Amino acid sequence: MSENIKICSGFRFAGVHCGLKADSALDLALLLSDCPATAAAVFTKNRFPAAPVIYGRKQLAAGEKIQAVLINSGNANACTGHQGEVDVAAVAEVLAVTLELPRPRIFISSTGVIGEPLPVTTILNGVGLLVADLDEVRTDNASLHRAAQAIMTTDKSPKIAGVEVQTSQGVITLTGIAKGAGMIHPNMATMLAYILTDVEVEAEILAAMLKRVVGKSFNRISVDGDMSTNDTVLALANGVSGCALSSAADLEMLEAGLLQVARDLAYMIVKDGEGATKVVTIKVVGAADAVSAEKVCRAIANSALVKTAFFGQDANWGRIIAAVGYAGVELKPELVNISFDQIRVVSNGLRDPDYLEEDGAAVLRKPEFSVKIDLQSGEDEFTVLTSDLTHEYVSINADYRS
Amino acid sequence: MSENIKICSGFRFAGVHCGLKADSALDLALLLSDCPATAAAVFTKNRFPAAPVIYGRKQLAAGEKIQAVLINSGNANACTGHQGEVDVAAVAEVLAVTLELPRPRIFISSTGVIGEPLPVTTILNGVGLLVADLDEVRTDNASLHRAAQAIMTTDKSPKIAGVEVQTSQGVITLTGIAKGAGMIHPNMATMLAYILTDVEVEAEILAAMLKRVVGKSFNRISVDGDMSTNDTVLALANGVSGCALSSAADLEMLEAGLLQVARDLAYMIVKDGEGATKVVTIKVVGAADAVSAEKVCRAIANSALVKTAFFGQDANWGRIIAAVGYAGVELKPELVNISFDQIRVVSNGLRDPDYLEEDGAAVLRKPEFSVKIDLQSGEDEFTVLTSDLTHEYVSINADYRS
Repeated sequence: MSENIKICSGFRFAGVHCGLKADSALDLALLLSDCPATAAAVFTKNRFPAAPVIYGRKQLAAGEKIQAVLINSGNANACTGHQGEVDVAAVAEVLAVTLELPRPRIFISSTGVIGEPLPVTTILNGVGLLVADLDEVRTDNASLHRAAQAIMTTDKSPKIAGVEVQTSQGVITLTGIAKGAGMIHPNMATMLAYILTDVEVEAEILAAMLKRVVGKSFNRISVDGDMSTNDTVLALANGVSGCALSSAADLEMLEAGLLQVARDLAYMIVKDGEGATKVVTIKVVGAADAVSAEKVCRAIANSALVKTAFFGQDANWGRIIAAVGYAGVELKPELVNISFDQIRVVSNGLRDPDYLEEDGAAVLRKPEFSVKIDLQSGEDEFTVLTSDLTHEYVSINADYRS
Repeated sequence: MSENIKICSGFRFAGVHCGLKADSALDLALLLSDCPATAAAVFTKNRFPAAPVIYGRKQLAAGEKIQAVLINSGNANACTGHQGEVDVAAVAEVLAVTLELPRPRIFISSTGVIGEPLPVTTILNGVGLLVADLDEVRTDNASLHRAAQAIMTTDKSPKIAGVEVQTSQGVITLTGIAKGAGMIHPNMATMLAYILTDVEVEAEILAAMLKRVVGKSFNRISVDGDMSTNDTVLALANGVSGCALSSAADLEMLEAGLLQVARDLAYMIVKDGEGATKVVTIKVVGAADAVSAEKVCRAIANSALVKTAFFGQDANWGRIIAAVGYAGVELKPELVNISFDQIRVVSNGLRDPDYLEEDGAAVLRKPEFSVKIDLQSGEDEFTVLTSDLTHEYVSINADYRS
């Protein structure tokens, strides 16, 4: 995260401690737009969606514009049944009344422990703190940083990204914050991300764009293979820049900007994966079809043995070969090439005759490197960012609730 | 493993140190039948099968009887290409000549590091040691124990099981040894198992039986979700007891005996899973169909977050709910019940009102316990044995090759 993030016009931010987390840690964030913003969201595919996800889905399906987003960490409000949904509505209602907005314009997210009732009173106290002095809800980097901090769970640092894009209508800005850390996987598990922009764009176009962007960013990272009940990516476009985008070229620029912010946040999530010490790009090329490329790529990126070898800085290509082999894809072992960065390790299914263990080991010692698998069977490719599996991952997740 | 395992007639065993492993550790095992034995095998589904698997598959497909099994640890002879297959044949040939047997009666297995050439000379020296004094290849528990030790990789202890079964033709005996530890998963990954019996039975019947038995034993355990290049389960029936089984009732008794030995070995593999401190039975009941039961069960059993919570002795049912939710199965969250042993934790998708955290914690402190998930949607069920994910798992796998 850079110190000086581009902040898009007409959005203000705040983060406070309301008491859900210990030690005065920030645990309640507010993202506030100066006017109603066009909204699009991608939610978890988990069959046990948390109460705020159920609530948000209905809201988006009804085509509501969003003006305020309230996010608490420390409690997921998941597996809380009907009471959980009532609690979301109650929190939204209080914030709506306080901000003098219609309730449908309030979007709520929660992240944290599953199965505990939402401490509504604690959150409502926090809402009081947030809006007691609305001058403190600001459009500066410090406020944005506090909001990003308030949505963290086991994250070690806040995740913020921003970019400016030149369009035919003028310069537009996109700003995003996210939380991630554990349970990140094929379907963007246990992560929250909010990408804000000051353009005016049609809701249907924004929704289609966000879906594609999520498929190329948050859905291509892997920390531990689990998928949470609360995952949400929300995009808001408030139009405050005065740029109304509709031409194909401008929409392409907007999508590129969205993708850049989403990829930056996704990268930060992997880098800050629970206990992670490495960021590894797994790139499969030369696949016979897109599905094969993805299957092989994810099998490697999610293998506990491969990820532990990365932690051990062990150029154990045998485990990568084994993962390729069980990915459930028809392939010819004798065609597979594997490289660690520029070092060819496997050629045509066998250890490359020129490969020196010390060269592989040198790559593995780097904090970031790539593993390229060429199946030499076609033109399709797929890339996933993954992290290593470490002692600290075990410590964090063995002790998380206690 | 008990001290006094039932050993079936007409089989002898030995284990020696030939030099593949350090510190004089046993690394070469011989299982020798007094006469040619009917054979059946189940091999890895990995698309990169190791050379001995390719060799063994052809051997079994040709309907060969097997009389001697040679297994080395320390080197998998996997991803070794044509040279690897030549090496298997060379080792088999030397053992055949030495034992004065036709080469097709020699079965070879390897386990260990992938991608390194098989040290054939070292193994042939070991063959010399094994057969230098055939009187040392014995049918006693000490020899069986040495053979079981010689096939270990990261296993902490040898895995041996035996059972006697009464049939209409007399008492028959089944004896098995196995190695496992890491990479154990849906498809019995990185494990070797040999189940020997002194009955006479048709090869086709034995093959069908073994396939069913593996499906109910080695394919229902999970350590880390990977599947190796070398997995092999071999059953040999040498007929030395004089019991020729053909009636449905007798064959059922034989299959029950096979299943018991296989389940005992599978249990030992999970218990000795790399770094494992817990053996946990995940049982899904009330599923709408068999596929749903299995999917939900495996999603829980393979979740890194669930397994780490077991290690932390944390009754974190939220992670179990999350895994149920992403298993890819249609289900009604509001019908799901979860119990830890006899303690009801979740009722109808919500925390049970009578559940006390201390009761759940008491179950989690036990070295073995069960998690039961009732989907209340039908009659189908599925069970998987799993282990916890621990610091030691990470240590073992980060350092395995070095």
